[in-house]
Amino acid sequence: MTQIILNASNRLRRSPTFERVRAAGAKAYSVYNKTLIGQWFGTMEEDYAHLKSAVQVWDVGGERVVEVAGPDAQRLIQMTTPRDLSVLTDDQCAYIPMVDPQGGMLNDPVLTRLADDRYWLALADSDMLLYLKGLAAGLKLDTRVFEPDVWILAVQGPSADELIAKVFGEAATRTRFFRYTMVELGGKWMVLARSGWSVQGGFELYVDGSDHAGPIWDRLMEAGRGLDVRAGCPNLIERIEGGLLSYGNDMSVEHTPFEAGLGRSCTIDRDTGCLGHAALVAAREPQRQIRPVEIAGAKVPVVAALWPLTAPDGQPAGTVSSAAWSPEQQTNVAIAMVGRAYWTPGTELAVQAPDGERPVLVKDRFWGRKSA
Amino acid sequence: MTQIILNASNRLRRSPTFERVRAAGAKAYSVYNKTLIGQWFGTMEEDYAHLKSAVQVWDVGGERVVEVAGPDAQRLIQMTTPRDLSVLTDDQCAYIPMVDPQGGMLNDPVLTRLADDRYWLALADSDMLLYLKGLAAGLKLDTRVFEPDVWILAVQGPSADELIAKVFGEAATRTRFFRYTMVELGGKWMVLARSGWSVQGGFELYVDGSDHAGPIWDRLMEAGRGLDVRAGCPNLIERIEGGLLSYGNDMSVEHTPFEAGLGRSCTIDRDTGCLGHAALVAAREPQRQIRPVEIAGAKVPVVAALWPLTAPDGQPAGTVSSAAWSPEQQTNVAIAMVGRAYWTPGTELAVQAPDGERPVLVKDRFWGRKSA
Repeated sequence: MTQIILNASNRLRRSPTFERVRAAGAKAYSVYNKTLIGQWFGTMEEDYAHLKSAVQVWDVGGERVVEVAGPDAQRLIQMTTPRDLSVLTDDQCAYIPMVDPQGGMLNDPVLTRLADDRYWLALADSDMLLYLKGLAAGLKLDTRVFEPDVWILAVQGPSADELIAKVFGEAATRTRFFRYTMVELGGKWMVLARSGWSVQGGFELYVDGSDHAGPIWDRLMEAGRGLDVRAGCPNLIERIEGGLLSYGNDMSVEHTPFEAGLGRSCTIDRDTGCLGHAALVAAREPQRQIRPVEIAGAKVPVVAALWPLTAPDGQPAGTVSSAAWSPEQQTNVAIAMVGRAYWTPGTELAVQAPDGERPVLVKDRFWGRKSA
Repeated sequence: MTQIILNASNRLRRSPTFERVRAAGAKAYSVYNKTLIGQWFGTMEEDYAHLKSAVQVWDVGGERVVEVAGPDAQRLIQMTTPRDLSVLTDDQCAYIPMVDPQGGMLNDPVLTRLADDRYWLALADSDMLLYLKGLAAGLKLDTRVFEPDVWILAVQGPSADELIAKVFGEAATRTRFFRYTMVELGGKWMVLARSGWSVQGGFELYVDGSDHAGPIWDRLMEAGRGLDVRAGCPNLIERIEGGLLSYGNDMSVEHTPFEAGLGRSCTIDRDTGCLGHAALVAAREPQRQIRPVEIAGAKVPVVAALWPLTAPDGQPAGTVSSAAWSPEQQTNVAIAMVGRAYWTPGTELAVQAPDGERPVLVKDRFWGRKSA
């Protein structure tokens, strides 16, 4: 597979720390919510080993932030998600599947409750700004839906707490999982949440005002020198091992949250106000679902389009959406959408990869945090 | 500026003719509506000269098609555009600015009226599928809004009519500007519209069913051999000369259609049902507007972020959003958003380009079709 050269344009946005990411040696980029994001700095395997042993600072500016504010803010967001928002506390972040009235997934952002009439969504790769604006316009809701000048920097890895303590003080590290606290640096207050797109532990900083992002990046890098801090980015191997889904890769509007294995984030025993409620009640016993699978053989190529899975009798059994060679597991770890008849752990299937057919084994769980 | 390597993933879609584009020698790509699109095949200047002298086939699969169908289809689309849709004839395509209730631009697609209850939108780079779905959900409209398996191939250049005649017969070339006809190839019927993102003349084929796109591409290439047909793509130089705007580059939700110079596509003397009607009536005398400008000096670098314009007294005068060296004009042609005080043709300004300040001249018109 030859390299793809990306043509620069104003249409493809650059985060306020883009030049620092480039200077840190980003080797490839992707486009996420129309924003360039660095994809790795060493090899993917080197980045992976470092992420699991030290601490990294990630420019995840592609997780664009949408603010929903006003008296109807919670009602508007609740219309798009089966997760019950009425139970959120004031310092809470929540991973919320968002769905259309047919129950099809539109996004799976982290929601931060800044006040009962003010929320931030840190988006996966689809423009929920437009869906929310459309819905609010149709219902003439009393809300403002817009993209504030807020950019997320993630601090991820086993030494994340230590780095955060050095920069923001010990108290900041007492923030619980998917809760946030306000921290200050150079007179600038920010949301610091214990969250992030790895299972190594860590934080996400919501930098409010692009002028502040560079100095904060520099401060984290400086303070982390003794911790072997490096620029990093979400790591394909690590996120597959951890079972973290990628919207647009692993699921789309064609799938319900139940098919995506996100049933635990859905309240369906009562109607919370989600427009997809009835559809989700009807869809709660899915006929296909996300499963961890192992793909035999040497390191797999990149999944640039879904790979078909087949049963021994040749019947279609699903598709593989993400796959990577795991140096720790010494096999290819993968995420697949598997038909009900085939999803029992231990089931043997085959996948049509671009370089030929390979044996596949359905696993009972994702590989998680384990480090060599 | 170093090259940016794009990392492949399933999330970044490939059109059904992606491999043909690659085989034809695409040198760089962009991501447009989450779809990879080839950006040039020779140098940008070579592609430009060829486009103005022969005929090219473009994979513009990034112009994703959204279908709006059902009894409320026209009403739904009309809510998003100030262009009066009630006057469209049955075989008509229409360039429609789409706006939010505040009059901010959301997209500027070409609308094709397939029937009074069935429309296609060929989108610029923003996900109007989500806005339309949100609006329809809020109002409980009787519509279906979805992305059909339709992919656009454009045939552009002075020999476009000749090529279309060879493949689809002489009658097809009698299609008028922004009208369409149905054509057939290998038993497959398609919409053929006289439209496209160049001012060299040509057509857009809406290939309904991705399996058909490859064979149709091959047929066009084969039939066009004597016409020096080549794979091509929208050309930055040619589209600036022609005054064709690029959503996300030249205008965004921050701009009204009047600021974008699209007042001729807005009906504001009566309320057509556009939710932005009142806002647009109030905004019809803009304080800034798109203007063609010339930038002095040698070939400019790529505009990867807006370049500030200043007046002789140092006051901000606007921004340059697109610029390229024109071999025919022997100067840098550019598109700028210019403040009212400075937009009179002949006004001299300065632009802060990444390689230094350069003199700028406001022009009275875009450069258009002229060929050397």
